[in-house]
Amino acid sequence: MLKTYTYENLSTEEIEKLILRNSDPNHSIQSTVNDIIDEVRINGDTALVNYAAKFDQVQLQKLYLDKAEIEELAMSIGREQQRALEIAFQNIHKFHSSQLKRERVVETMPGVKCWREVRPIEKVGLYIPGGSAVLPSTLLMLGVPARIAGCKEIVVCSPPQKNGKINGFVAYCLILLKIERIYLVGGAQAIAAMAFGTSSIPKVDKIFGPGNQFVTKAKSTIQSLTNVSIDMPAGPSEVLVIADETANPAFVAADLLAQAEHGEDSQAVLVATNSDFVIQVNAELEAQISALPRQDIAAKAIDNSYAVVTNDLRQAMQFSNRYAPEHLILETDAWQTITSLIFNAGSVFLGHLTPESAGDYASGTNHTLPTSGYARSYSGVSVDSFVKKITFQSINEEGLQHIGSTVEILAELEGLQAHKNAVSIRMK
Amino acid sequence: MLKTYTYENLSTEEIEKLILRNSDPNHSIQSTVNDIIDEVRINGDTALVNYAAKFDQVQLQKLYLDKAEIEELAMSIGREQQRALEIAFQNIHKFHSSQLKRERVVETMPGVKCWREVRPIEKVGLYIPGGSAVLPSTLLMLGVPARIAGCKEIVVCSPPQKNGKINGFVAYCLILLKIERIYLVGGAQAIAAMAFGTSSIPKVDKIFGPGNQFVTKAKSTIQSLTNVSIDMPAGPSEVLVIADETANPAFVAADLLAQAEHGEDSQAVLVATNSDFVIQVNAELEAQISALPRQDIAAKAIDNSYAVVTNDLRQAMQFSNRYAPEHLILETDAWQTITSLIFNAGSVFLGHLTPESAGDYASGTNHTLPTSGYARSYSGVSVDSFVKKITFQSINEEGLQHIGSTVEILAELEGLQAHKNAVSIRMK
Repeated sequence: MLKTYTYENLSTEEIEKLILRNSDPNHSIQSTVNDIIDEVRINGDTALVNYAAKFDQVQLQKLYLDKAEIEELAMSIGREQQRALEIAFQNIHKFHSSQLKRERVVETMPGVKCWREVRPIEKVGLYIPGGSAVLPSTLLMLGVPARIAGCKEIVVCSPPQKNGKINGFVAYCLILLKIERIYLVGGAQAIAAMAFGTSSIPKVDKIFGPGNQFVTKAKSTIQSLTNVSIDMPAGPSEVLVIADETANPAFVAADLLAQAEHGEDSQAVLVATNSDFVIQVNAELEAQISALPRQDIAAKAIDNSYAVVTNDLRQAMQFSNRYAPEHLILETDAWQTITSLIFNAGSVFLGHLTPESAGDYASGTNHTLPTSGYARSYSGVSVDSFVKKITFQSINEEGLQHIGSTVEILAELEGLQAHKNAVSIRMK
Repeated sequence: MLKTYTYENLSTEEIEKLILRNSDPNHSIQSTVNDIIDEVRINGDTALVNYAAKFDQVQLQKLYLDKAEIEELAMSIGREQQRALEIAFQNIHKFHSSQLKRERVVETMPGVKCWREVRPIEKVGLYIPGGSAVLPSTLLMLGVPARIAGCKEIVVCSPPQKNGKINGFVAYCLILLKIERIYLVGGAQAIAAMAFGTSSIPKVDKIFGPGNQFVTKAKSTIQSLTNVSIDMPAGPSEVLVIADETANPAFVAADLLAQAEHGEDSQAVLVATNSDFVIQVNAELEAQISALPRQDIAAKAIDNSYAVVTNDLRQAMQFSNRYAPEHLILETDAWQTITSLIFNAGSVFLGHLTPESAGDYASGTNHTLPTSGYARSYSGVSVDSFVKKITFQSINEEGLQHIGSTVEILAELEGLQAHKNAVSIRMK
């Protein structure tokens, strides 16, 4: 059952407390991760084989599967599943293809032309969690924009199963993405391998993907230790549902539970304009949860969650913006009147028939999104995440006449004489 | 004089060594910065006043200047300088205004609509270095895109001068940007203040701006310590000039010196298609450097730099892409034939009449750019840096019929039953 608060009765401090996510000040994780990073940096492939034996209980002969092995695994899955993965691939591809456009040249002064050109990040690393949970959808969410961006080298790491292979669904996604190799490395050691490179695994420029707290800590550590960058900091997944009297309590409960089954530390927040509605949702939660295979996890996550009752949708949106949810679902007939009030959110689901799980898999939007309040300053993964925009400028003689003295004056007032000279010498 | 290497004679290891930047493994800086961050987090404004006394030798009565004080300082500068700052402002504004466009709605399946909407980051912090060097241009480079993005709160911190005020040029830029307050805080303490907030200084969501190694270390520290994000990691400034026989050695030398005067750790790399040209540039360096007020700094930076001789422009571009320079200048008549070969660079200056200093001040492009090889994965600051792109999706009954079973199948194969239910319950 969701603990319930009334928005108007909350003090600023209480709101601050509610919007604060679980932060993990676990230093033992950091020191374990540091050890793994050092070990991989120094011993490379040998370290990876040893970690696979230790953590994945498998003795690997080689650290990757090649094209033929991937194809064999991919063919082992059912046609219905293949078809579903193809549809997800197509929708994600269609939406992400629209994200990059050629930009126009701007002539800021006569003869001074400026523009941006897009270039792919050459080498990217995608981490796909594996082991117990299998996440082919994550491979599509990262692989599709990487392909659209035109990255030259796409390195995929995922932990091996106990038979030394990978899941057939993941294999089928590799085929759809035309990626011909997957590295059998999981955990913090995979992040370290892609950051430093080993004999088998290429060093990359940027690392993407979700993972457990070891993976997450390894990503933030290599970000500060090396010049390899990362997609974004990650925390437990979360949803905030805004619902008014037009909402269906069964739909709302189903959406909260879809979030809750991710993990005990997931958070499912309900913001309702009416306290009776919260009671109805609680009844639905109780009814629906008992049918779930992951009900223990979901129950703990629901304990860790809460409901807030507001006077109206506007107030609900105020709270939501402060919370800055990864996923925001607007279960109200009036959603069109409030989308302009959304300032902080990762991805937004509009109306009664748009569950978050549609976006998790197949609507076309990306499911790699900012958690833990990072939606205040981060966007989710998109094709933008896989490219750089390089600025260009070209000045001709006319342009130099127009801009020259301005640059000279500004360089002079900043006390940078050589900056001034670089213009003056060309104006002679 | 530039040390000179011949590209074809270099081993892979030697190239790796050449492209490696000064990395600063100075742990005493980290511990000093940690102390400052703790002190500001705990003691707030009091700590800031004490640091101003200690580092800036000024006893502050209040931690900011307000509108009237800013206006008075701004009016103290010459009309010619005001005009130059206005032109820079206009050009930067004109170019950056072109960077954000409304994106179209994509219907990935009938009844399934997806799109992105842009929202400003609400609270941004701009750090403007001060003290001995005065950098009004940096205020324009950060303030203009923040204004175009529509950020609600723009917090500006800059160290106070010994009289407890700021430089008139910076004040004039504040007026142009319609920013009515500036906080008199410098160094790591400014970064900590904006990350945690104090009684005087608002907490922000993202911090921008260059600074000395304490500022830089403070930015990377708060990035891993809090959920405040930063523009990019920063290192010493650098330029790479590609020149062929059509280049003017005097122009090239002037560009190398403009970079070298920034600091002893700046790097100015020349990649020439001809070894005689390097000799001519060395002669020009010697001739030009003696006239510079900052010649001691520039001389040390030149000692820290080098030239590489290649067979042709294509090979020159190979080296440049591996180096991934912050600034790349193409001093060749044939620049149009090689821009498509550029993969890694922050900002590019095309042809003989486009010095880097034009971009530093006034061409319109941004001068906050990725250094130290970060151009492999980062773009320079733009309006994009001050916004988030939020994804939206809206599914109607027709859409649910089209997408429903795909989501059900994918949720099932990932073992997430509640994800499946959230769709199934809506399809009944």
